[in-house]
Amino acid sequence: MPKLNPPKGTRDFYPDQMAWHQHLLDAWRRVSVRNGFEQVQGPVFETLELYKVKSGDGIVSELFSFRRANGKTDFALRPEFTPTLARMVAAKANSLPRPIKWFCTPNACRAERPQRGRLREFWQWNVDLLGLEGPGADAEVVFTLLDFLQEIGLKPDDAKVKLSHRDVVAQVLAGLGLEPERTDDAFKLLDARDKMEADAFAAQAAELGLDATAVERFTQVSGKTYAISDVAALTADLGLSEPPADLVALIDQLTAFGVADWCEIDLGIVRGLAYYTGTVFEVHETGGKSRALAGGGRYDKLIELFGGPAMPAVGFGMGDVVLTNLLEDKGLLPAELGDRPDAFVFATDDAGAARVAPVVAQLRRGQLHARMSYKTTRNVGKLLKDAEKARARFAVLVGGDQIQTKHLATSTQQTVSPDQLLAQLSPRPGAD
Amino acid sequence: MPKLNPPKGTRDFYPDQMAWHQHLLDAWRRVSVRNGFEQVQGPVFETLELYKVKSGDGIVSELFSFRRANGKTDFALRPEFTPTLARMVAAKANSLPRPIKWFCTPNACRAERPQRGRLREFWQWNVDLLGLEGPGADAEVVFTLLDFLQEIGLKPDDAKVKLSHRDVVAQVLAGLGLEPERTDDAFKLLDARDKMEADAFAAQAAELGLDATAVERFTQVSGKTYAISDVAALTADLGLSEPPADLVALIDQLTAFGVADWCEIDLGIVRGLAYYTGTVFEVHETGGKSRALAGGGRYDKLIELFGGPAMPAVGFGMGDVVLTNLLEDKGLLPAELGDRPDAFVFATDDAGAARVAPVVAQLRRGQLHARMSYKTTRNVGKLLKDAEKARARFAVLVGGDQIQTKHLATSTQQTVSPDQLLAQLSPRPGAD
Repeated sequence: MPKLNPPKGTRDFYPDQMAWHQHLLDAWRRVSVRNGFEQVQGPVFETLELYKVKSGDGIVSELFSFRRANGKTDFALRPEFTPTLARMVAAKANSLPRPIKWFCTPNACRAERPQRGRLREFWQWNVDLLGLEGPGADAEVVFTLLDFLQEIGLKPDDAKVKLSHRDVVAQVLAGLGLEPERTDDAFKLLDARDKMEADAFAAQAAELGLDATAVERFTQVSGKTYAISDVAALTADLGLSEPPADLVALIDQLTAFGVADWCEIDLGIVRGLAYYTGTVFEVHETGGKSRALAGGGRYDKLIELFGGPAMPAVGFGMGDVVLTNLLEDKGLLPAELGDRPDAFVFATDDAGAARVAPVVAQLRRGQLHARMSYKTTRNVGKLLKDAEKARARFAVLVGGDQIQTKHLATSTQQTVSPDQLLAQLSPRPGAD
Repeated sequence: MPKLNPPKGTRDFYPDQMAWHQHLLDAWRRVSVRNGFEQVQGPVFETLELYKVKSGDGIVSELFSFRRANGKTDFALRPEFTPTLARMVAAKANSLPRPIKWFCTPNACRAERPQRGRLREFWQWNVDLLGLEGPGADAEVVFTLLDFLQEIGLKPDDAKVKLSHRDVVAQVLAGLGLEPERTDDAFKLLDARDKMEADAFAAQAAELGLDATAVERFTQVSGKTYAISDVAALTADLGLSEPPADLVALIDQLTAFGVADWCEIDLGIVRGLAYYTGTVFEVHETGGKSRALAGGGRYDKLIELFGGPAMPAVGFGMGDVVLTNLLEDKGLLPAELGDRPDAFVFATDDAGAARVAPVVAQLRRGQLHARMSYKTTRNVGKLLKDAEKARARFAVLVGGDQIQTKHLATSTQQTVSPDQLLAQLSPRPGAD
């Protein structure tokens, strides 16, 4: 007898769960398209080699990898889309029109211990803009992310995008006396801060070679968020002579896109992965402790790393699991999803029974969503209840000598000839 | 330097390829929904054990299987959806409303040698109707398949669904003197017939214990197709005293659904997999030699095999690769796919440049698909060409002191205030 559960950390999507999942995938796609991004997709597995390019050998233990019985190549299930994207861009860099604006919504698998917000199979929305320099590109990508958050029902009070810039953080660290070759170590420490006690963080900051004052300022600045209208306070706290130009330029662009109310500055955000090069950002629930809803930034060196030409790039990823948890907590999961039938067809007498299939076929071929009763009862009251339960717009009552339609919202009932049926049931704009 | 190709037998979907792929997935979904099926989904990998339940150990060499470094469980990438479906149904058999009408459009991976029509990663449309006995259920599932073929532009002249019934074939074989315990062997031989020389087929048929006359009749009947109006000829050829009741009932139902012109009878179709129990069918290109476009049938014992209750079931699968090849051969792949922008926004002077982002943001937040020029040129003629190339409905010309819209199909140009812009560009039903 086989096990009836899905593998640990994976999910079965029954119709109710799938209705939400598809709603989410559709919303990701709709927002991507209206922001001018084009959909792409790659293989669900790649060579293991490909995943090491960006992340080194350290990634291997997090992967589901495999090799064919007599094969020579190691493969791994896709843990994220970025290596595939970089490979695809590098392969056709010279023939792709620029800027390249791509999105995708693939599943991905990581061999991690399943916990709240983290599963072994998840779906991730990826949005990337390549071939375009400057904070305008960064801002457009962040706008797209926020356009989705608004689309799905969140408000600036619910979540914030925390903006940072690696060059600014590096500049601050250098000003505190950090040796340049320790910058990556400092980034790693910052990235781990949320999971550490304050004492441990200070101790490890001291190990970077910072003196006590520098550790204190580092701790303070990296642990504080600033309103984007409050760059002056940030500049003072950082001990800088003038506002950091890269951040100011980004803020100006985000303000032009009209999303300033979603944004704040948080120089504690560096995104541990070594390939980010400038702007970095994460979306977090306001006041929440959960994992980031989304994260991304600029990665201007990555396409070269995958054998392509030098190409500026900025993008982000958003997983389905943390987002769904948040929406559930906030009561923002839509109550009634799934597609409403246009018609629920049943026979009112035995002679009508033979006419149900032709009627249903006619409606479906006419693009209408038609369901039928599979019951043998001729109890019209019960069958109408089934039509309501199915949330149909119309019940279609098929008798041996006539067809009647009943509009369920208004209880309007009328007799129609078979050749009028399709026209009568077709939805009109604005009508229910 | 990493390899820039996807793994053998898998595909990269760049925007052009993805536009078709998404169009296909959307068509599968649209047709499924209007036929009253609900979408489900399962994990991209399952335990290896699960895949052995239905197919035995023989399946293992066709799977991409793996085990974690310190793990105890073997997993495999999904080679098909049916085992997951059976597991999911069995797990909730008592709480799921019946009949269960499910569809899905997952990818699946098989470690086969890639060739025309057969890849290592492909997408498969699955449609299943469970909990309902009788030829009406079989016919509804076949109707759904044909509704899709019509939706995608095929006609009864292009492809036919070849109907068969395992009980009828078994009855014919018994009539020819086949021992009942050799029935499965005979099914396997029939299933392999397309790939065999006639001599080899006759020789193997003889090895089943049939005499020369029986071999000849077996060869003849299983190699011939009959119009569904021609059951009399079939009955005569089979040497039966009356028409096979199961086939006649199926044909009557398909005729009621209005799809008789898509159907023919081909008792050479048995679907090799041992779990089919009654009606079986395949869709083939008319006169074509290619692999089946789709195949399915009744599998009334499968849910029990997976630990669930006895439950009648019928369904089919259709892959994306053979179908796409056929549509390409027939010139039926749509020429212009992808979403047309509602607006293509650009600045006509330097003062306008700063207003582009706010205008674009306003349109996108208003649900419109808005693109913008990333060029620094102010040459309106060139920028209008870019708008046309992007297939936008409107160009939006943003100057420092005014905004103009140009409807590209009619060249109608007008000046609009920012607060009228969204309303003016929003699509109206029936307008372009």
